[in-house]
Amino acid sequence: MKAIVIHAAKDLRIEEREPEQPGPGEVQVKLAVGGVCGSDLHYYNHGGFGAVRLKEPMILGHEVSGHITALGAGVSDLAIGDLVAVSPSRPCGHCEYCQKGLQNHCLNMRFYGSAMPFPHIQGAFREVLVANASQCVKAGSLSAGEAAMAEPLSVTLHATRRAGDMLGKRVLVTGCGPIGALSVLAARRAGAAEIVVTDLTAQTLKFAKAVGADVTINLADDPEGLKPYTAGKGYFDVLYECSGAAPALAGGIQAMRPRGVILQLGLGGDMNVPMMAITSKELDLRGSFRFHEEFAVAVRLMQAGLIDVRPLITHTMPLEDAESAFVMASDRTKAMKAQIAFRS
Amino acid sequence: MKAIVIHAAKDLRIEEREPEQPGPGEVQVKLAVGGVCGSDLHYYNHGGFGAVRLKEPMILGHEVSGHITALGAGVSDLAIGDLVAVSPSRPCGHCEYCQKGLQNHCLNMRFYGSAMPFPHIQGAFREVLVANASQCVKAGSLSAGEAAMAEPLSVTLHATRRAGDMLGKRVLVTGCGPIGALSVLAARRAGAAEIVVTDLTAQTLKFAKAVGADVTINLADDPEGLKPYTAGKGYFDVLYECSGAAPALAGGIQAMRPRGVILQLGLGGDMNVPMMAITSKELDLRGSFRFHEEFAVAVRLMQAGLIDVRPLITHTMPLEDAESAFVMASDRTKAMKAQIAFRS
Amino acid sequence: MKAIVIHAAKDLRIEEREPEQPGPGEVQVKLAVGGVCGSDLHYYNHGGFGAVRLKEPMILGHEVSGHITALGAGVSDLAIGDLVAVSPSRPCGHCEYCQKGLQNHCLNMRFYGSAMPFPHIQGAFREVLVANASQCVKAGSLSAGEAAMAEPLSVTLHATRRAGDMLGKRVLVTGCGPIGALSVLAARRAGAAEIVVTDLTAQTLKFAKAVGADVTINLADDPEGLKPYTAGKGYFDVLYECSGAAPALAGGIQAMRPRGVILQLGLGGDMNVPMMAITSKELDLRGSFRFHEEFAVAVRLMQAGLIDVRPLITHTMPLEDAESAFVMASDRTKAMKAQIAFRS
Amino acid sequence: MKAIVIHAAKDLRIEEREPEQPGPGEVQVKLAVGGVCGSDLHYYNHGGFGAVRLKEPMILGHEVSGHITALGAGVSDLAIGDLVAVSPSRPCGHCEYCQKGLQNHCLNMRFYGSAMPFPHIQGAFREVLVANASQCVKAGSLSAGEAAMAEPLSVTLHATRRAGDMLGKRVLVTGCGPIGALSVLAARRAGAAEIVVTDLTAQTLKFAKAVGADVTINLADDPEGLKPYTAGKGYFDVLYECSGAAPALAGGIQAMRPRGVILQLGLGGDMNVPMMAITSKELDLRGSFRFHEEFAVAVRLMQAGLIDVRPLITHTMPLEDAESAFVMASDRTKAMKAQIAFRS
Repeated sequence: MKAIVIHAAKDLRIEEREPEQPGPGEVQVKLAVGGVCGSDLHYYNHGGFGAVRLKEPMILGHEVSGHITALGAGVSDLAIGDLVAVSPSRPCGHCEYCQKGLQNHCLNMRFYGSAMPFPHIQGAFREVLVANASQCVKAGSLSAGEAAMAEPLSVTLHATRRAGDMLGKRVLVTGCGPIGALSVLAARRAGAAEIVVTDLTAQTLKFAKAVGADVTINLADDPEGLKPYTAGKGYFDVLYECSGAAPALAGGIQAMRPRGVILQLGLGGDMNVPMMAITSKELDLRGSFRFHEEFAVAVRLMQAGLIDVRPLITHTMPLEDAESAFVMASDRTKAMKAQIAFRS
Repeated sequence: MKAIVIHAAKDLRIEEREPEQPGPGEVQVKLAVGGVCGSDLHYYNHGGFGAVRLKEPMILGHEVSGHITALGAGVSDLAIGDLVAVSPSRPCGHCEYCQKGLQNHCLNMRFYGSAMPFPHIQGAFREVLVANASQCVKAGSLSAGEAAMAEPLSVTLHATRRAGDMLGKRVLVTGCGPIGALSVLAARRAGAAEIVVTDLTAQTLKFAKAVGADVTINLADDPEGLKPYTAGKGYFDVLYECSGAAPALAGGIQAMRPRGVILQLGLGGDMNVPMMAITSKELDLRGSFRFHEEFAVAVRLMQAGLIDVRPLITHTMPLEDAESAFVMASDRTKAMKAQIAFRS
Repeated sequence: MKAIVIHAAKDLRIEEREPEQPGPGEVQVKLAVGGVCGSDLHYYNHGGFGAVRLKEPMILGHEVSGHITALGAGVSDLAIGDLVAVSPSRPCGHCEYCQKGLQNHCLNMRFYGSAMPFPHIQGAFREVLVANASQCVKAGSLSAGEAAMAEPLSVTLHATRRAGDMLGKRVLVTGCGPIGALSVLAARRAGAAEIVVTDLTAQTLKFAKAVGADVTINLADDPEGLKPYTAGKGYFDVLYECSGAAPALAGGIQAMRPRGVILQLGLGGDMNVPMMAITSKELDLRGSFRFHEEFAVAVRLMQAGLIDVRPLITHTMPLEDAESAFVMASDRTKAMKAQIAFRS
Repeated sequence: MKAIVIHAAKDLRIEEREPEQPGPGEVQVKLAVGGVCGSDLHYYNHGGFGAVRLKEPMILGHEVSGHITALGAGVSDLAIGDLVAVSPSRPCGHCEYCQKGLQNHCLNMRFYGSAMPFPHIQGAFREVLVANASQCVKAGSLSAGEAAMAEPLSVTLHATRRAGDMLGKRVLVTGCGPIGALSVLAARRAGAAEIVVTDLTAQTLKFAKAVGADVTINLADDPEGLKPYTAGKGYFDVLYECSGAAPALAGGIQAMRPRGVILQLGLGGDMNVPMMAITSKELDLRGSFRFHEEFAVAVRLMQAGLIDVRPLITHTMPLEDAESAFVMASDRTKAMKAQIAFRS
């Protein structure tokens, strides 16, 4: 079978690997679709991010769907032929955080396509994937492309739950890549009454509008665009910070009301923060990282027609053109979510 | 001007009253629509409920909308001609609960159409109403009938906020009068993934379906209808108890998961409760009573097209047929929400 | 070895059993002290409670401490001779509730001394006990009697956490057996500013005073004793309902402030509840059941001198007089907590 | 009467002012004790902090107690001679934040001794103070010095409530001036099981020990002192950041467990924050600013003997030596809380 392997920055190869057979509790999945995520792009463009660097070749990919082709012993709730969304998250189930229900903080996490430990955790961009049955959520009635969106959608659902009650709230989203755009969908689904989105490119803001943002502001054109929301002590109840850029966070903070909640989703390094405003407005800055239960919820909400991610899937490339999917996904003036079709 | 006055059970009269002029901070509203609520029906059918009894004639009504016809001194954010939803809630703003942001628990509350203190608090079913500007929320783009639904919708939005995060939750609604049906809308808006509704009449369950319930169960026909949801330790995350009937609560409790949240909206008297199940499943039974900030949120969500109450307005009667609106509203096999049109 | 076995109501026997050897991950404990709990008394006095009935002989007991006498393979954090408090709670660690961090709702719970499933779960009142190492918390510096109090203390710590922030709160405790008295200690430790306790016997209220209650009210002598706290909309922020008696709950509800929290710890059957007051004051009635993480916390707080349970241990009987401990524990005019000393 | 007036950095004068008479709802207070706070020191040493600068002479002081000497019309719950703690916080009661119960975010706040608006809000360091009766909390049984500690204690109680349930938690306090030391008392009162304090001076850490810290670490001597707490994913559940120094926050973050709560009390300017750790450990950084309801709670907890602030009052200077109190309070190697005695 073929797999998409990163060797170093800009050195992406399609290589032959030996397919695995499912053991007890496992299933074999013929991959249908894989979405290219921001962290895949960091490996592709820069060979890593921050202190996380590639030290050996690694199969990329963690946003995937496919069809069950074989069942390991003891698997009874899945059937051959089922379309499934496959969660890339493999917590151990035993450590203190798993036993607290905080599986995303598992001390022994093996998340697909992560260079953090060494040897690296190999990813899911391969024609045949063996996964635990518990990673697989049946996605019947969805397209394979939608099913592969369960993963990034889960990230925003998890953050949304971290914000608590959202009904009737005023929401700001800073940074409108796929996570920002999915945050618009998640916030709206959870009852946000008003959603404002900022970014630095016109194209991404068009997608924000397409998925329901009430107002979009291109801060490249209009650096003072949030000014009207800073009157009094500020306007927004919730901020999804999806850019990882310190100026976006700082600008958002000025527009937050006292006791507002900031969800930090964007991954940056150290950030310079106007802490006086956080203290004096008693803002609540909450990191949000990955997901657990939300993966199945994401599939269910899409199946019920309650969240529609289709406008965000802008490009689908065949496996043999995988690298062009990475190039396209890197160009935010053109692409929102680029996916790779694995099926021949 | 004419007003709808209850004198005793089944003694409803349309009487002439002197219109008032707005003082400072007040406005005069020409009433457009008034919805008949369950408490209005209690006064009409039984002369009160529980210990609350009519002791003098009282103008009924607290679900109203109308157009501004005069502005008192100092009112600047409303204009003559504006369609407004008028909140029936008039907290004092000064007592300890108002100063805690719990205005629905105001020690000096003057809620329209309440026989609780004596003299009674007169209601809003009158052709000309003088209200505080702060009670009025501009409802432009809504119909007057929708605007009059802001009040009962607020009740369910308030309860929904009491439940906290609703995203992806499994919801049960017991009792599907107007509050139950609006709870379906509110729960869905807040992100509920699955909504099951029970009642004892087929007609009300049809409305539940019309506003988005996934499953409806007529417990009159199928008393064991919730059985499938009681397997293991139960199924639902949230219960909106809208019937005020002890068997509905008891049945719902059996279908709740450990740590589930029960919102008690239905007003009954004392209720026999399976407390062992509440304790051992660590359920969380939360009373929910009226609303405050949610009134403006209700208008906003309807204006934004995020909640559509129109399927629930089943009858509109002219003022002169007011009593037939009360009769119709009392017949749950026919009506969901009956409203009175005050405008000639 | 000897074990304390209940055969039927009032048929308590000290019987010989074969001691077990510890397997991997297990330890052998020579029991030091066992406390008699209310559920033990239900089996002893009535052969069960509610639908839970004895169907075969069962070793009683779940409040125990002892010294490690042997270590199974792989146990490294305990040593022979250690005094340990042994948690009676044995969740499976794998079911959906364990994986949510709600181990007290484990679908496969095996809690010592429970007649709920059949065969019954045998208890811990035996001279030699084999337990999982994970059940054992080192209790050095405590007496064995204190260590055996970790279990009931955990119950009240768990309830206290269910109440959220307690700092400066006004607390009512209804029912002052061991759980009520320990609730006084837990509420004070968590920062309660004022604690009022009600009961029907003078003796228990003396213990409430001894552990820090500010006011005690004997409702047998003064049935209107809570009247001063019902003025306005009520007084207390938090109610620990430890009696399981409907009149205690109903009386407490009248004295609660709007948005107050009721912790239902007492186990009764169905209870008649003034639901109108719960709804209109928006009270929050939360069931609280057993504990999980709080067991280790209980030991730590006692070791740090932050909670002192010693005034509540009123009787200690040798193993051969076990039945007299049960008789004494049943007499609330004399005993608070009666314990059995297993060591010769 | 005399007042303590700051004109510019290091220009502190004792000046004569005309005493005021109490109007309706007000009282006249003969000041007993005033504590010197960090913000007073900023005006004294630097003429302000950040963008907040002195533009005209301002009476300093906001931690005060005194005795009632005259009652304005309508004041009935205070009596001449009462010792009262006087809250410096004067919210308007009418703005949207006051009506939400967030009086510390009042849009029209008039907090004693603040140069933020112009004209400045004059402070409370004057021999005769006229205050609203609602600012005064009877402090009978406390010393005047303790009563004057109600204000800084309230700051830490407010922060502690922002942390939610504290029972059995592991707490880190970074920066141990008066607010840090009072945080130790507040955290312990709320049930913290283990409290570690860091600072850069030995003297302050001695006070931390005196009020109950379990472990103190002098990071000046031992820059790696928190290292043992960073193993795995970290150790502490709650961090009180009381220094306002970016390195203290950054060091604390490394020692926090996933989902830990950081209370930002220290006032600094912009701070460089390791945001990747906040995101990946899903930390919750909550600003905490001033207080409202906690002022009366602070007095009550001291009166009940539940919090003892006396070890922290290190210096008391007579009014005529006021400046030496400011000098002493600025020297953290000598003083914890320096107070000024106003009574002759």
